[in-house]
Amino acid sequence: MNAEASKAEQPEQTEEWADVTPDAARRLVRAAVHAFAERGYHATTTRDIAGRAGMSPAALYIHYKTKEELLFQISGVGHRLALDILRSAAEGEGGAARRLAAAVRSFVRWHAEHHTTARVVQYELGALSEEHYTEIVARRREIDGVVRGIIEDGVRAGEFDVPDIPGTTLAVLSLCIDVARWFTTEGRRTPDQVGELYADLVLRMVGATDA
Amino acid sequence: MNAEASKAEQPEQTEEWADVTPDAARRLVRAAVHAFAERGYHATTTRDIAGRAGMSPAALYIHYKTKEELLFQISGVGHRLALDILRSAAEGEGGAARRLAAAVRSFVRWHAEHHTTARVVQYELGALSEEHYTEIVARRREIDGVVRGIIEDGVRAGEFDVPDIPGTTLAVLSLCIDVARWFTTEGRRTPDQVGELYADLVLRMVGATDA
Repeated sequence: MNAEASKAEQPEQTEEWADVTPDAARRLVRAAVHAFAERGYHATTTRDIAGRAGMSPAALYIHYKTKEELLFQISGVGHRLALDILRSAAEGEGGAARRLAAAVRSFVRWHAEHHTTARVVQYELGALSEEHYTEIVARRREIDGVVRGIIEDGVRAGEFDVPDIPGTTLAVLSLCIDVARWFTTEGRRTPDQVGELYADLVLRMVGATDA
Repeated sequence: MNAEASKAEQPEQTEEWADVTPDAARRLVRAAVHAFAERGYHATTTRDIAGRAGMSPAALYIHYKTKEELLFQISGVGHRLALDILRSAAEGEGGAARRLAAAVRSFVRWHAEHHTTARVVQYELGALSEEHYTEIVARRREIDGVVRGIIEDGVRAGEFDVPDIPGTTLAVLSLCIDVARWFTTEGRRTPDQVGELYADLVLRMVGATDA
């Protein structure tokens, strides 16, 4: 689907699929992410995925009945990890500015380090079944709620000046998510550097008094 | 490729393909945009595109030798329109803050109104031939240069406070481009309302003194 997705080796800074068991299922998920990223969900067959994982189509079928189940597994894990990262920042120490900066830093780093997974998760939402799509949308609302909660804390405490809280929440998340589209490991900035830059820009967006 | 892309009717607020002639070529471009948006570039055949346009594969071949030529036409027109919009804002009246706000407003509106085209342009870059990709990257550098130019003007004039000009330029463009991913005509905000919100957020990002 994207030159950078297919050409760049993605360093696995954190093991995003650690919770997917058994090993064979984890291998299939990894193969599916790379196949979807390179050619798109609809151009990928379960045979392609099994082949990439060094397995037979029959062996794939033991773990995933359909290609859509694999996409749902990928999307589910991706959204759960994103939510965990944001919750842990939101529940951290300090005032709203410090917690918002921490949330942006780690959310950006995740989207930079796992840009291949993040692209598949974001761009193939429409390929999910209606039931699975509904489940993922609920998780996306939780993600939105965590960031909105920090911004509301900051406004209540007089730390932030935000005329449109839902709109600003949307923009902050959008800015971070889009890192997955443009980030490449050959670029001039590391994931940490992008995180630092974006934390500063987001504190400006919310009019943080100590930014 | 995306639920919203395939399900929502895209209102054609401005005729994005007016310069594509003759009529048959324009019909093919429109058909290709919708086919690529629904199923992805690699899952779409020239036969699919011809069928959508009510033409035979042989008739398609008169105008476009390959599917990739169609994608390049779409990407070329999309990038040229984006560049025109930004240049006209950059060369408008007023100081840097006013011109940056105008640029963001119109760039956001374009990405909201033409979100189907914009998604194809952004997500299928990797499917371009090397030669065409190089041409498009050159146009992307010009787009980046226009926004960076306004920010530099503002810094020089003491209107803006921007510690990292290239990074801030990247973030401003990324924020606007990602509107194409999340925008849906069924959402609560119109393209103009998103443009207003984002113009305000971007003036905050650059520390505009009169924001």
